[in-house]
Amino acid sequence: MSDPTKIFLNEQDMPTQWYNIAADMPTPMKPPLHPGTGQPIGPEDLAPVFPMNLIEQEVSQERWIDIPDEVMEKLLLWRPSPLYRAKALEKALDTPAKIFYKNEGVSPAGSHKPNTAIPQAYYNKEFGIKRLTTETGAGQWGSALAFACQLFGLELKVYMVRISFDQKPFRKLMMQTWGADCIPSPSPTTQAGRAILEKMPDTPGSLGIAISEAIEDAVTSENTRYSLGSVLNHVMLHQTIIGQEAKKQMAMVNAYPDVIIGCAGGGSNFAGLSFPFICDKIHGKDMRVIAVEPAACPTLTKAPFAYDFGDTAMTTPLLPMHSLGHNFVPPPLHAGGLRYHGMSPLVSQLVMDDLIEPLALHQLECYKAAVLWARTEGFISAPETSHALAATVREAQRAKEEGKERVILMNWSGHGLMDLLGYDAYLSGKLSDYSLPQEAIEQALHDLDGLPKP
Amino acid sequence: MSDPTKIFLNEQDMPTQWYNIAADMPTPMKPPLHPGTGQPIGPEDLAPVFPMNLIEQEVSQERWIDIPDEVMEKLLLWRPSPLYRAKALEKALDTPAKIFYKNEGVSPAGSHKPNTAIPQAYYNKEFGIKRLTTETGAGQWGSALAFACQLFGLELKVYMVRISFDQKPFRKLMMQTWGADCIPSPSPTTQAGRAILEKMPDTPGSLGIAISEAIEDAVTSENTRYSLGSVLNHVMLHQTIIGQEAKKQMAMVNAYPDVIIGCAGGGSNFAGLSFPFICDKIHGKDMRVIAVEPAACPTLTKAPFAYDFGDTAMTTPLLPMHSLGHNFVPPPLHAGGLRYHGMSPLVSQLVMDDLIEPLALHQLECYKAAVLWARTEGFISAPETSHALAATVREAQRAKEEGKERVILMNWSGHGLMDLLGYDAYLSGKLSDYSLPQEAIEQALHDLDGLPKP
Repeated sequence: MSDPTKIFLNEQDMPTQWYNIAADMPTPMKPPLHPGTGQPIGPEDLAPVFPMNLIEQEVSQERWIDIPDEVMEKLLLWRPSPLYRAKALEKALDTPAKIFYKNEGVSPAGSHKPNTAIPQAYYNKEFGIKRLTTETGAGQWGSALAFACQLFGLELKVYMVRISFDQKPFRKLMMQTWGADCIPSPSPTTQAGRAILEKMPDTPGSLGIAISEAIEDAVTSENTRYSLGSVLNHVMLHQTIIGQEAKKQMAMVNAYPDVIIGCAGGGSNFAGLSFPFICDKIHGKDMRVIAVEPAACPTLTKAPFAYDFGDTAMTTPLLPMHSLGHNFVPPPLHAGGLRYHGMSPLVSQLVMDDLIEPLALHQLECYKAAVLWARTEGFISAPETSHALAATVREAQRAKEEGKERVILMNWSGHGLMDLLGYDAYLSGKLSDYSLPQEAIEQALHDLDGLPKP
Repeated sequence: MSDPTKIFLNEQDMPTQWYNIAADMPTPMKPPLHPGTGQPIGPEDLAPVFPMNLIEQEVSQERWIDIPDEVMEKLLLWRPSPLYRAKALEKALDTPAKIFYKNEGVSPAGSHKPNTAIPQAYYNKEFGIKRLTTETGAGQWGSALAFACQLFGLELKVYMVRISFDQKPFRKLMMQTWGADCIPSPSPTTQAGRAILEKMPDTPGSLGIAISEAIEDAVTSENTRYSLGSVLNHVMLHQTIIGQEAKKQMAMVNAYPDVIIGCAGGGSNFAGLSFPFICDKIHGKDMRVIAVEPAACPTLTKAPFAYDFGDTAMTTPLLPMHSLGHNFVPPPLHAGGLRYHGMSPLVSQLVMDDLIEPLALHQLECYKAAVLWARTEGFISAPETSHALAATVREAQRAKEEGKERVILMNWSGHGLMDLLGYDAYLSGKLSDYSLPQEAIEQALHDLDGLPKP
């Protein structure tokens, strides 16, 4: 038999530590700032929102952090995830490139999100927390955290952006099956929600509003903390299990990537796959690392590296990141997970240091790649993931033009079985590419005026 | 590290042949009969409906049949499927039983159905067929065949029971993503459909009507054949890859099942897992093999072994099988895949020979088990699969009562991400157990009057 189509890692070979890229950053990370004083915040400033053990991870400079046994036991419910070779796609593209992909769609929630939901639930539980709150847009994160909270016996309240709550009832049903309470946001249960509802009773809601409600609930309720599914350092940390597994699996077939590709909204699936390899790049290894974002929300390609709030309501510390401004609202887009105005500070800094190459793609190219993928590799991809697929197709075609046997490694971050309406819109010709006017971006960036500069 | 949670089989250890249990049946199979003459049909009688290479498999007595390379290449897109140990469920039940399950939900279509869709598409293609037709109820089969036809460049038309077409738009979108044409049945495109629509313009449709339309389309169109996703011998044959993989995986951890459990609608996922083990049972191995059906459609537990039609419109040959009568319409039930009036003749004969033990369960017990599963093992199960889960819970509890370290092997035939409305109905208390009145069964069985007896 020829090269395998799938490379399985045995459980005894699972990575036992997370990789913290903060220890290897060529440029030291700039600290988060207190929005009132403009001074770096300390761990105690975050204590009302997160448990101290996670805050310690957030600020840690240790290169390796042990994965607790209780976390490992839960990760083993689906990990190690298989590494696949996309031979059928290679054949369809007639490319000399070898395309590998990490299949993160095998998790119970269908994406990479549980990789951090599990440890976040665990550390909160260890800290004595009984209940978590979070927000969710399309529902990937809310369902992953619902699954994780159920496993550790924590209560969970999810504030789901109302328009998604109404349009994506299946995600809500997943959360309920895992025992979480999911309500549409804005809701009458928080001050922030009531204020919005009074002004705009028919608002479809937004991620910014939902974050405000979830944080308010967390800081005003007993034994409750808030949980975020991307952007923050400890989230990137937990996701590095993807890249560490992939490294071992690539080694099993004597391969090493020339190009690494992931889609990037808040940055976590991208960071999860790429950071363990970027570690090698920092130490001299030659490779390209591509973060793919939608042209309709071009955080890395069109926005400055700036200090900005993580939420619209300006309740979070100021984070040093690429940001389109905290009031930026991207046009409607099926890839709900890629609509965030900001970006992981770690990913942002690595883009500044030229270790990561950002790429913005339009949605028609992404859906075209996703349909080609479904019709060759079989799996139906999440709209977010389709951005990584489109970039992979580009790289494979370039390898063909150059006649090079390039090794591509891509993160297949999740399946699209709950997102088929986007495919329907694409296949029936109802989708078009939206070109964001430069003025719209410049207008949005005015929100950064007056904030400290990194 | 302790016993693994997942046992991966490497691709080079994949079974290379299908196992044909017809070669080992203690009682020879009774032949299908021509409904007009009452005489055994020959291969040529089936030729307008199926390609001759599949008909040869249908009647073959060879114990082992080679899997063609072209089929193997496509199966490798997701196979071998992992064998899981349900440790979290064991812990929750505090049982000494060891529960293993085969995860067939990892296929692109989300169930075991592609295991036969791929070879059926291949053999039709080999025979020069350009186009297939089929019917689908809940949509599992239609989407699996759409995926398979796409891979081999065949056209596919799916007649989908209208009520499902309207209520389950996502399954239709999966089929369209894989390039198939899916229309609601009854349709105005066939004589059978027009006749029904004339009489009952608002009919919700039925599997029986959809089969009639698909067969009519196949036999009246050029280069077209019909494809069936369960019941027939060649379908059971193709599914035996599940049990053969499982046998190798169990051996990797030095285990052999005391009890094998699968849900049974037409019988294919059940047969796929169990037949390679029943081969050992025929040759003296001591084990129990349990086929679980819904109490609302109690084919194996309440219906006779009889000759009956495969479809409502009486267009198929008479098959020797457990049947509730070809007009039997079970009450509404979320497990759409378990609503068939008949059963695989091979499974039926093995029940007659006491090699398989049938068990009928009510849906509340099944959903209870499925929610427990989601909240321990993580994965959300298809409503069909939940029947196997409930039987597994029963066996695990019995093992606890008896203090025995029993080894249970179960087929997790598919995920339930497209079937969350059933969970919603269960969790919100809207489901109840439906006890089929004995008179309703007896009434339905009158359809068997006047047909030949096996």
